[in-house]
Amino acid sequence: MPAFHDRPRFPRGFRCASRNVGLKSEAKDLTLFVSEVEANAAAVFTRNHFPGAPIILGRETIRAGRLRAIIANSKCSNVATGAPGVANARRMADAAAKELGTTADRVLVSSTGVIGVPLPIEKIETGVVGMQGDLQDDPLVGAEGIMTTDTFPKAFSCSVGDATITWVAKGSGMIEPNMATMLAYIFTDAAFDAATLDRMLRAAMTRSFNMLSVDTDTSTSDTCAILANGLAGVVDEKAFSEALIAGCVKMTETLGRDGEGAEHLLRVTVRGALNDHEATVIAKSVVNSPLVKTMVHGADPNVGRLLMAVGKCFDCTVRPTSTDAWINGHQVVRGGERMTFEDAVVREALSTEVVDLEIALGVGEARAVAYGCDLTKGYVEENASYYSS
Amino acid sequence: MPAFHDRPRFPRGFRCASRNVGLKSEAKDLTLFVSEVEANAAAVFTRNHFPGAPIILGRETIRAGRLRAIIANSKCSNVATGAPGVANARRMADAAAKELGTTADRVLVSSTGVIGVPLPIEKIETGVVGMQGDLQDDPLVGAEGIMTTDTFPKAFSCSVGDATITWVAKGSGMIEPNMATMLAYIFTDAAFDAATLDRMLRAAMTRSFNMLSVDTDTSTSDTCAILANGLAGVVDEKAFSEALIAGCVKMTETLGRDGEGAEHLLRVTVRGALNDHEATVIAKSVVNSPLVKTMVHGADPNVGRLLMAVGKCFDCTVRPTSTDAWINGHQVVRGGERMTFEDAVVREALSTEVVDLEIALGVGEARAVAYGCDLTKGYVEENASYYSS
Repeated sequence: MPAFHDRPRFPRGFRCASRNVGLKSEAKDLTLFVSEVEANAAAVFTRNHFPGAPIILGRETIRAGRLRAIIANSKCSNVATGAPGVANARRMADAAAKELGTTADRVLVSSTGVIGVPLPIEKIETGVVGMQGDLQDDPLVGAEGIMTTDTFPKAFSCSVGDATITWVAKGSGMIEPNMATMLAYIFTDAAFDAATLDRMLRAAMTRSFNMLSVDTDTSTSDTCAILANGLAGVVDEKAFSEALIAGCVKMTETLGRDGEGAEHLLRVTVRGALNDHEATVIAKSVVNSPLVKTMVHGADPNVGRLLMAVGKCFDCTVRPTSTDAWINGHQVVRGGERMTFEDAVVREALSTEVVDLEIALGVGEARAVAYGCDLTKGYVEENASYYSS
Repeated sequence: MPAFHDRPRFPRGFRCASRNVGLKSEAKDLTLFVSEVEANAAAVFTRNHFPGAPIILGRETIRAGRLRAIIANSKCSNVATGAPGVANARRMADAAAKELGTTADRVLVSSTGVIGVPLPIEKIETGVVGMQGDLQDDPLVGAEGIMTTDTFPKAFSCSVGDATITWVAKGSGMIEPNMATMLAYIFTDAAFDAATLDRMLRAAMTRSFNMLSVDTDTSTSDTCAILANGLAGVVDEKAFSEALIAGCVKMTETLGRDGEGAEHLLRVTVRGALNDHEATVIAKSVVNSPLVKTMVHGADPNVGRLLMAVGKCFDCTVRPTSTDAWINGHQVVRGGERMTFEDAVVREALSTEVVDLEIALGVGEARAVAYGCDLTKGYVEENASYYSS
């Protein structure tokens, strides 16, 4: 586990800026992340069949494996907007490139917000002018700029040898990554080629963002990109890769804790599964179960719901008599039967900010961890009027 | 579509009774359904890996294809209770058999309520004594007896030739049947053998209860049984089968409308899918999407969420340019793009008690309909303290 810095900082050569350009009434809605030199880059995007225009463009852009900048707006996701939407995404890349003195094919575009509304591209084109002069060293400025329903900006960093890795991301609903309305940007001054970055990024995703589910819904805009500008030179790949995974898991937990309406981070560990696939399916079933989520929300020791959520994985190997479960270290199920326990003890365990649910299946050796959050009235409230508010 | 009776009635020879025997403080918690002669019978049970003790026993009982009675209690589901739980389920069948002058192997047992708590079997054994004298002709008496979080009792009936079919069921959370904490009992005086009943029941389930999802969670107690005592003699099988399907769909809609906290019945029709499996997967994805459910709850015309929910079916064939969508007959998506529409019109369409969402994929000929409900603060409230209340 790397030591994360007390206050996030950028690797050499990276800076960011964010502004209100009139998409929202007051909050920041346009953000730039810039490397002073071209960086090798890799990115993964949503698997949703209706990818947003920025995703369609981004898949094309990332093929070269080279980026100078990222431009991201909130409030409008530029999804389900057809050919004019893609043209607008291109204009957005153009505008950033012109401002920064590069070409549009070196700019990754992200848009989040309501689906199916035309992007107010003129506001972005006008608004980006002069942003180069705003560029600064604090990643939190960019993290704040990309927020939508997030309640706090999300950025942190760590050192690997002489290099730095910085994570900046947003959540926080329509999140079952594979990916989510999640934007996660990772910046480093370590030197890696694009293919290596891609491989390391995908390995880290599998164990982190792709195990996160706020609400089972997979956004049409999800993007995770890594930029390595090489200004710190060569870094040990194994150490870097381990730090990358640790940081991605940390950011996954941060996003889960700040899921829409969430009051708890829910961490579900499944072990003793037949294979990795089944471990993942069962961990996600538990973390996504509305009845498990409301149980955590209410700190209600209705632990039978854990068995229900495991048991509804019809196609997985589950042996009731070898199934055990724990809540924050307190065993509540043994051999498929609810144990006798003090309600108050489990109630207290369920009241902590981070709730660890652990399931031991006893049918194999595979293990998976899924991340999520409780289901609250806040989630319902936020999403019953998202478009209108 | 059969004509359903204005007021539900039983087929010849069926009666029911319900009582409070002290499992709940005041509400009825024990119910008997009885045929005066043995009936041919079939039943389907939950696929959950942790079936309740009554399910374990019921699978054994139904093998003979013969039933005289059903005994059902609420408040305690007798799930995750091990061998003592199964022994208690047997004692429950025994107690009903003794009261009715039959044998335990002709009694189907159902229990619903909290998981993992021992069944207070003595209260049931004592409480069932004398219930034979309470038996009456009104199916609503039994429907009321099996209610848990249901807000109203659910029973109706129709005629097929000289025979009657009567449906009695309860919902209303932990419901994605395959099955749900759903108990659905179907009574008829038509004469069919057990194998025919089983075949007709499974065919009806596929299009009705198995397409219902209140919250994606699959109960450990779900049971759907049909009893045919033959007192009305032979009935045309095709007419009966059609009426059976129509009544099961009607009961599915009734359960969806009364899902925990629900204010709307949500009906999702997917057509033009590549095959039946993909039509079903996509319809369920839409009906289960928390963001679609909250959109309906808030009557918020955030129609892009429909595309998101279709698009997250990664393994299905979806062609954005041929995807259309309607809300209560108002087209909102054409060729994968959000159409221009008056917000007020869609808002009004989303405000009706029954909300029909229709998706045309344009990639094949298959069709499926899924049933569900909106997601409300009421659902969160109910389930954050279910155990404790």
